This record gives sequence, structure tokens and C-alpha cells, in this order.
Amino acid sequence: MAVSLDLRTLLARLRSLSRVRNAEVVREELEGIRPEDLAEVLPRLKQEEALRLLEMLDDETSAQVLLDVPTESAKPLLAAQPDQTLAFYLDVLPMDDALDLREDIGDERFDALLEVIPKEDAQEIRRLLAYPEGSVGRSMTEDFFEVAPDADMASILTDIRLAPEGKYETVNDIYVLDVDRHLLGVFSLRQAIRASLDSTSREIMVPDPITVEADTPAEDAARLVARYGFYAMPVLDERGRMLGIFTVDDAQEIVTEADTEDVLKLGAVTGGVESYLSLNPWQLVKRRVPWLLALFVAETLTGYVLRYYGQGNGDLPLNPLTFFIPLLIGAGGNSGSQVTTTITRALALNEITPGDWWLVMRREFVTAVCIGLLLGTVGTLRALAWGTDWHLSAVVGLALPAIVVWATTVGSLLPIGAKRLGLDPAVMSAPFITTFVDATGLVIYFEIARLILPR
Amino acid sequence: MAVSLDLRTLLARLRSLSRVRNAEVVREELEGIRPEDLAEVLPRLKQEEALRLLEMLDDETSAQVLLDVPTESAKPLLAAQPDQTLAFYLDVLPMDDALDLREDIGDERFDALLEVIPKEDAQEIRRLLAYPEGSVGRSMTEDFFEVAPDADMASILTDIRLAPEGKYETVNDIYVLDVDRHLLGVFSLRQAIRASLDSTSREIMVPDPITVEADTPAEDAARLVARYGFYAMPVLDERGRMLGIFTVDDAQEIVTEADTEDVLKLGAVTGGVESYLSLNPWQLVKRRVPWLLALFVAETLTGYVLRYYGQGNGDLPLNPLTFFIPLLIGAGGNSGSQVTTTITRALALNEITPGDWWLVMRREFVTAVCIGLLLGTVGTLRALAWGTDWHLSAVVGLALPAIVVWATTVGSLLPIGAKRLGLDPAVMSAPFITTFVDATGLVIYFEIARLILPR
Repeated sequence: MAVSLDLRTLLARLRSLSRVRNAEVVREELEGIRPEDLAEVLPRLKQEEALRLLEMLDDETSAQVLLDVPTESAKPLLAAQPDQTLAFYLDVLPMDDALDLREDIGDERFDALLEVIPKEDAQEIRRLLAYPEGSVGRSMTEDFFEVAPDADMASILTDIRLAPEGKYETVNDIYVLDVDRHLLGVFSLRQAIRASLDSTSREIMVPDPITVEADTPAEDAARLVARYGFYAMPVLDERGRMLGIFTVDDAQEIVTEADTEDVLKLGAVTGGVESYLSLNPWQLVKRRVPWLLALFVAETLTGYVLRYYGQGNGDLPLNPLTFFIPLLIGAGGNSGSQVTTTITRALALNEITPGDWWLVMRREFVTAVCIGLLLGTVGTLRALAWGTDWHLSAVVGLALPAIVVWATTVGSLLPIGAKRLGLDPAVMSAPFITTFVDATGLVIYFEIARLILPR
Repeated sequence: MAVSLDLRTLLARLRSLSRVRNAEVVREELEGIRPEDLAEVLPRLKQEEALRLLEMLDDETSAQVLLDVPTESAKPLLAAQPDQTLAFYLDVLPMDDALDLREDIGDERFDALLEVIPKEDAQEIRRLLAYPEGSVGRSMTEDFFEVAPDADMASILTDIRLAPEGKYETVNDIYVLDVDRHLLGVFSLRQAIRASLDSTSREIMVPDPITVEADTPAEDAARLVARYGFYAMPVLDERGRMLGIFTVDDAQEIVTEADTEDVLKLGAVTGGVESYLSLNPWQLVKRRVPWLLALFVAETLTGYVLRYYGQGNGDLPLNPLTFFIPLLIGAGGNSGSQVTTTITRALALNEITPGDWWLVMRREFVTAVCIGLLLGTVGTLRALAWGTDWHLSAVVGLALPAIVVWATTVGSLLPIGAKRLGLDPAVMSAPFITTFVDATGLVIYFEIARLILPR
């Protein structure tokens, strides 16, 4: 089956399925769909629709789906599940993934769950939780396949044959540990098969593998996995004893999240790496306002500079209208940058497609109006506090929301338009949007000024 | 061996090694260093030093090292190698990696090499080259392990045992193909070991795996690999026949490169994804000037708007000094953004460390002076063409390079400073730099104006 990236079709199918009452039929229909794809579409469903679908999935699939759903969308869905279901989730998920559940359901409920799941699992989870947040220790799994240096291939292959299903996350790499749990070397399952049955681990292992310590930041460890092209990397404690392995699938997820975070930060958007559509406009506002407001206040510095040279000092007489030019085009440029980076990243990760333009527009419009009114109020007050007359203060207060809404619209539509035309959306770079908004924003400012300022 | 991220120490060690004449000693010293680490440091050596080191490595290691060195740095080093060595490289490298060599040594020399390497290898390379650039077909390997549906586990394990070393890139996944080379299913080596020896592939395979077509963009395929957490993904032709596999290590490389490209594009830097230090200042200028100049010209639009309202139209009289404010702070903001994004990405990928601040400063200073003089010239001409008087035109022409140099310094030092303080360098977002440069850039502009303009 070639994978279909067409989430829109899947969405329509799920919507109609969520209305079917016969669980059998739904389950059969859903069988062909990968949990990862379901997770991608679930945040776009109404909460009741999503819950109804989850109910009809078997618990193991719904656990996998919910794990992949971004935190913000997963929270309400998980909150609606009974403890019994959540305990089952903890049981079937790999331990490193189970930790992620903690963020979704809250520490308190998570800790309560640890009391009802098998003791061994709870202990492993508590051990992993002891490592600092964001460290590779939190993302490793303890279920690696270890052998003694004098174990021969015959016994190793028998072990693999007889191990209970799911005991090891992977047996592709086999780790040779001494009695003190120090890592001596590593060899692949393929090497084990190719070696003679009576050769020992010590004979065929590659000694001295590259390792990381458990408190290494997970991003650094992930970049090393990428750099060396590893499938898994051993994780040691500070005394050199092997604790677990950090696998490439987790590394990839961490690298992608770190890159998303960097992109958004460079575009002055704070907060997590939630997928774009899993956030409602109010959450979008919350992620953008802190920096935008900070930058807006910093930008008032330009007002001081202009007033100092243009008024106080007197040698370079400037029209008071000028004092607000950098502030206004700055606010437009910054809000435009935020939107462009957010949308470009969402397009790169296939979270949205050009067909979503109308959906994006509506969300961004609501977001922009909220942000614009806030900045407009702050801007008016700042102008009045400088002793600016009422007329000019009103011009500033009206121009700000207008420019922010305009910049947001341009910043969201241009990358989508570029993608639709088959161009790379990132070409609509933040500086490009800023420059475009500079000129057009001034037109808005001066037109409002001509309407309001007394001649 | 815990990996050392300390490239500075490695660099010093390599520098002194390149002066040692005894190849034996050098080889022994280099043995403990991974080719990927050597590749990271090689671009920082002088060309003669790098060539001398490469000479002393065995050919297989030097092939791996050169493959990992970014194109711009690898080109001169590869050009210096005799055909015989290059042919050997083609022989030892995996086919998908061998293709990358083409970009480094040029099509002509590459095609000539294809004539002297074993026919089978040359044919495989030509087949891969037939896929569009940037498609997954170019990044796949044909060396996957395939079996017939009725093959039993005993024969499969024997095949793995007897296959020549290196015949298959991986045998962790085993692909079941019918006589027409259609992919029926897949199973893991671990499953093969756990199944009884007389069970057939058809019995244990998981049918209908997720696949991609060979002309799918490699970035899309790589995002799918990441999304599903695969180790390898089968690649099919348009008629559904299996051609090869696309492995997670290649996927990771492609995702990282795509993300770097997106980050740089969002910061309005054009060109490839070369690592920061492998580019000399002149190459940095070439990557930044196109967008910067385009934005600069676009920004002159603000001049039209200001002149229209402030002079032509007359109702809002503005001091001619005002006409150039958005242009100047825009140029500062854009050049600052370019530098910040470049440096932040280089820090994230560990291409540079905070200890490199002085090296970065010197490079960026040279780059900024070149760019500043160029923009200064264009800006002066633009001002004169608008009929601006000589004095003000000179102010603009002097302020531009000063502001660009200032913005570049701030934009390169702030992310490095943030990293040194243990903060995330991406916090020094492009909008933050822009805002900071807005106010300080105006001070530069007005101070120059007070010096030059007649009172």
C-alpha cells in the first residue's frame, strides 16, 4: 500500500465513520489505517467525534494513536478515559513513550496510575523519571539485549528464540556487558548469525563503541546518532555502567522537534512544538503575544531616539508622525514573521496543505484581531504618555491593529501560495514579508493620518 | 569511549599530526578517531595540512572522511586525488553515497571514472542517476535482502550466513518478492530466527508494507520514515516493482539538511547547506547579497510612500531625513537576521562552539564590510536619483555600511553569548536582533547626519 498523504480524504472518511454506530464496521474500516495517520487527523475532529472513534478502536491501537497526538489535543481526550484504560496504555507502550503520557495527563494522575500497574513497570518508569528533563536518560529504553562476554552464539540465538514477545525493543544490536555492567563491546544480530555457533561474544564484538551519558541533553545525543548513522546508541551512567539504549526513531523525533522549536524561536514564537492545527486561536495568541509585546516595548526605544534628535535636540526637526514609523512597521514586521515561520514549518511537516488556506486564514484573522487590539491599546497609551496629542495617538491606536491584521494575512497566505505554485514556501522568508509589510504598512498609517489629523 | 564533542582539541591534535612525517605514527594516532569526527574538523585545516593527513589514512577511511566533508571543502581535496584513488572510493562507498561524489568532483570526471570501475557498479550508479535530482530514487540502495514467498527460514538463514561480506546494506528487514518483483510483505531478521526452520516467508511476513515511489521527493520520504519510526522503507517503481530501500540514516541526513535549508531561507540566506566554517567570507557574501539586495531594492518602496505623503502630497510635511529611515533600519534588520539565523543553526548543529567567537567575529566583520560597501553605493545612487541633495546622500551612503557592520556584529555575538550563558541561542531571535538594531541604527544615522548636514 502506497502511503497516502492526503489527510483531507482521511479526515472526511473519519468524520463519516464517527457517525456509524456499528463498532464492528468501524473497526474493520479503520484496520487499514496506520495509528500515525489517525493521530495526524484526530486533532481536526470535534472532541466528541474523536472520542467516539477512539472508543471503537482496540485499546492498544488507541494507545498508539493518542501517544502520537500532540499534547494540547491529546489532553482532553486522555482526560476522558477511565483509569483502567490509561493503566492499560502504560502497560502496552514502550517505557520511554509511557513517560510522555505524564505530560498529557498531569503528574498527579500519572503518579496514581503507577500504583496500579505492575510493580516492575512502575519501577522502570520511576528510574527514568529520575533523569533530568530533556536528557537522553528520559528517552532511552532499558529493554536492550545484553550478553556475557563468554556467551556463545548458539546460546545467544536460543535466547532470542525463546525470549517472550516484546521483551527487547530491538535485538539488531547485541551488547556485551561484564559482571559490573560495564559495556565491553557490541555486535550485530547479522554478525551473530554469520559467526560459528561456538564462537563467543568477546571474539566477534567490536570493542569500545561510542556511548553517551544518561544526563546528556537528548538533542545532543540525537545529533550524534544522526552524525554517525547509528540505529541505537548505548546510554551509560556516570560510572560507565550501561543503562539502556537510545534508538534512532526517538532520535529522529527529537531532532525534528528541536528544529521546529528553533525555527519558531527564530521567528519569535514561544512555547512547545505542537502541530499547528492542534492549537486554537487563543493558544496561538498566547504563543505569540509574549515576544511581540516585549519587542513592541523595546521598539518604543526608537521613539525615544527619534524624539531626542527630532525634538529635544532640535537640530534635525522631525514631524511627530515620524516618531511612530519604526514602531508601526516593526509591529507589522514582527507579527508577519511569526506567522510566516509558523506556517512555513507546518507546511514543511505536512501538518497543513495549500488546500487549508481558508481554514488558516480564519484562524489567523481571529488571532491577529486579538493581538492587534492589544498592541493598539498599549501603543495609544504609550503615545499619550509621551504627551502626544489626542489625534495622533488615535491614529497610532487605529493603525496598529490594521497593520497587524494586514501583516498576518500576508504572512500566512504568501507561503501557502508559494507552495501551491510548486515553489518552496520558505522562499517567502520572514525578511521578505517584513519588507513588504514596511511599505504597505506605511500606506495604512498615512491614510489613517489623513483621515483623522486636523489639517 | 565516550564521544568527545570537543572539536577544538581534535583540531589542535590534527594540526600537530599533519607535521609528523612518520605515516605509521600518524595512522596509529588516527585509528581511535571516527571518520565522521575527522570530517568535521578537516575543513578547518589548511589545504596542505588536510591533504597530508588524508594521504596517511588508508584509502577506505579517507573515502569515508571525504564523503562527510561538506561539498565546498571537499572539492579541492578531491580534485587533488589521482583517478585511481577516486575509483577506489567509488568502489568502497555505498552506491547512494557514491552518487554524492559526483557533485564534488564534477560530472565530467565522474563519468570518466564510471568507465574504469567494475561494470556492475557503474550500471547501478547510472540507474540511480536516472531518477530526478532530490528524489528518493537517488538516495536508495539496491542492496536489500529479498526472498521468495516459498523460501523457508532454514534456507534464508543459510543465505545470510554465506552471503559475501557487504553484499547487503542491511538484513534486519527481509523483503518478500514474487517473480515479477512485486513486494508481497516484509519480516524482520528477529522474526526469522524466532520462527520454526521450515516455515515459509509467506507464513511469517507482514503483508502490504508502506512504500514510496522512486520519484517521491527525498524530503517527503524522509519525513515518512521519521513519522512511522522505520529503519528502512521499500522504494518501488511506477509499476509497483521493488527497486531498493531507503534507510533511516540517509533519511536523517536529508531531514537535517532540509531543516537547515528552511531555517536559512527563512532568514533570507540562499544557497546550499554547507557547514558554516567550510565557507570563506567571500562565499558568505555570495549567499547573503542576492536576497539582501533584493530586499534593499524592495525597501526603497517605503521611500516612495514617504515622499508621496510627505512631499508630493503635501498634507503631511516630513523632513527628507525621514524618507530613508525604513530603508536604513530595514537593511540593518535584514543583515542582522541573516547572521543570527546562520550562527544559531551552526551552533545547533555543533558546527561552531562559543569558543569560536573571535573566529566568527573576524569572518563576519570582513563579510559585513563587503556587503555594507555594496549597499552603501546602491543606497547613495538611489538617493541621488531621487534628487536628494549631496549632503543627505552622503549621510545615507555612510550610515548604511556602519549600520550593516553593527547589525552583523550584534547578530553574530548575541546567539554565541546566549549559548555561553547556557541559554538557547535561538532565543536571540531574528525579530529581537531587528528590533535592537532599529533603535541603535537610528542613533548611527542621526549622529552621521549631525556631522555632515549643514545647519
